Amino acid sequence: MTVHHKRRSRLRDALSADSGGVFVTRDLASVRYLTGFSGSNATVVIGTDEVHLVTDGRYREQVAHESPDVVAIIDRDVVGAMRGLCTGCEIDLDDRTPVGIAQQLTEAGLTVRAVADPVAPLRMVKDAQELDALSRAGHITARALEQVADTITVGDREADVARRLEAAFAEWGAEDRAFATIVAGGENSALPHHRAGDRQLAMGDLLVIDCGAKVEGYHADMTRTFVVGAAPDEWQHEIHSLVLRAQEAARDALAPEVIAGDIDAAARELITQAGFGEAFAHGTGHGVGLDIHEQPMLSARSSAVLPEHAVVTVEPGIYLPGRGGVRIEDTVVVAHAPQVLTDLERGLTRVG
Amino acid sequence: MTVHHKRRSRLRDALSADSGGVFVTRDLASVRYLTGFSGSNATVVIGTDEVHLVTDGRYREQVAHESPDVVAIIDRDVVGAMRGLCTGCEIDLDDRTPVGIAQQLTEAGLTVRAVADPVAPLRMVKDAQELDALSRAGHITARALEQVADTITVGDREADVARRLEAAFAEWGAEDRAFATIVAGGENSALPHHRAGDRQLAMGDLLVIDCGAKVEGYHADMTRTFVVGAAPDEWQHEIHSLVLRAQEAARDALAPEVIAGDIDAAARELITQAGFGEAFAHGTGHGVGLDIHEQPMLSARSSAVLPEHAVVTVEPGIYLPGRGGVRIEDTVVVAHAPQVLTDLERGLTRVG
Repeated sequence: MTVHHKRRSRLRDALSADSGGVFVTRDLASVRYLTGFSGSNATVVIGTDEVHLVTDGRYREQVAHESPDVVAIIDRDVVGAMRGLCTGCEIDLDDRTPVGIAQQLTEAGLTVRAVADPVAPLRMVKDAQELDALSRAGHITARALEQVADTITVGDREADVARRLEAAFAEWGAEDRAFATIVAGGENSALPHHRAGDRQLAMGDLLVIDCGAKVEGYHADMTRTFVVGAAPDEWQHEIHSLVLRAQEAARDALAPEVIAGDIDAAARELITQAGFGEAFAHGTGHGVGLDIHEQPMLSARSSAVLPEHAVVTVEPGIYLPGRGGVRIEDTVVVAHAPQVLTDLERGLTRVG
Repeated sequence: MTVHHKRRSRLRDALSADSGGVFVTRDLASVRYLTGFSGSNATVVIGTDEVHLVTDGRYREQVAHESPDVVAIIDRDVVGAMRGLCTGCEIDLDDRTPVGIAQQLTEAGLTVRAVADPVAPLRMVKDAQELDALSRAGHITARALEQVADTITVGDREADVARRLEAAFAEWGAEDRAFATIVAGGENSALPHHRAGDRQLAMGDLLVIDCGAKVEGYHADMTRTFVVGAAPDEWQHEIHSLVLRAQEAARDALAPEVIAGDIDAAARELITQAGFGEAFAHGTGHGVGLDIHEQPMLSARSSAVLPEHAVVTVEPGIYLPGRGGVRIEDTVVVAHAPQVLTDLERGLTRVG
């Protein structure tokens, strides 16, 4: 039994007793999880006995190679293909499917019910093969950032630093970057989701680098904050120390069976008590795996219970508009002894 | 009146007379087109007078900066925010919205109707500002590929070549790559959507490089096929010449008011007549702009009429499983004198 076959068995067990018998998803990460297929166009139809995967002609060879145990259907007309497969069935449709497709299926006479993604809870608990890929992705990320940090100088363009880092991921063996690397210097570091643009790094900048390597489809996610070309100012040191303590508190709180919202609270309390609560305007972390953002979310409102072998980011930050920001982030395996996969010192290191 | 305001006016004009008065989309490219906001989480609510944009706390500063003429709402609870905005309205909901959100809106008492994306036909015709960004993206792509092709040698890993090329995009001034660069050597070149992996380039390989730079959110898309470290074999030369002629025929057929399917036919006929019809298993091209794939699709079945100033790719290919493949692709502005934005020679150049 292949790993994908096992996952599909667990999915069938997890589908509610009143399930219609057929589950359909077009979510590419879930498709990869359930079948191994990594193409950019796929609809998976999981019945009681058979699994069908509808894709297009670009992927004829790839689907045969990656997913030998599913029946591939090469057809751009997904609704037409599903009518052939599902007439008479009741379809549980992943509720992230576009409403237009759901309507077309209904109009084609199929019985469709939207269901909250039943694959996410399975994907939350990583198996040995997944932990291995994530561990390699985390290791590459840390080693590449360590290497590239040494090359950063005053005057570097943010985008050039980002591309150097992504080239280093490749040299260390990554298949790709996990997402567009964020390199945010000076006032840009106050924008939590700034990308990497034309701004040149200047003496005294805070520099936030948020990056990750991808290995076998699995994403690492890591942030370190540096100071450029000078010793840190007092205010830079203050907010960095605070974020560092908040990040440590959140990591210390990570354990199986803990409520996700409590991890967020562990970081947020320290930052709020110090008077920077308003300046920490995002959640403390998120699950990471075949998607860069997946369950569980470590946000204030989350009542999710963390399972053993969930993999999450821990990434508090403080952002002072017009001045600069600090974020410190690791990718961590939830366990009784949590394991940091992105192992690199967290100090406010000077670069350049 | 800002460019975004003008686009929203055109959208209001385009919405059908029986429109409910409020249009809602979560498609990020359409959000950017209509408001200028480039973040990763956005729901735009376009009413008769006001425009609201719902996003989260990470983007508080960015939305104020990029979209000063819309009302920003910072709220992770999109359905709750929309209930506040839309009670009593009839909502035209972009039919790519997840069916789960459509259901929640209905359950919240809102009146929702799914509509086929009304922004796509507007986005198909590029304005001067968009043509300028696409032109710069195309120029950077061609110059960077020309530069990096000279550095390729036998033994290079595909992924390393891909990252070198992406670094060159940055050096030439791109904000990012338009998509994960495809570098496919030898038998991998027979997989139209191979990415770039661990395989090392070998003497005599066909080498397909499919790449693009991104400028101000606009994507270029270009492919050239090389031969590695040797003069081409007869069969390599044969399929390359054929694809070259097919690509030229399709470019020659491009003009305003032509049916998209006829462009596909112009390329496909030549390839089919030469006996390689089965080996050309994808459409001849696609629109490109704020998305890497957008309307119009240049596929056999497409009855779309090409408007002046649509920007499309022209990219026939031939793929021989186990041996290798050829694809030649340009990004072209549809006009009475079509303009190729990715200007680089198309011959079967030897590298390495």
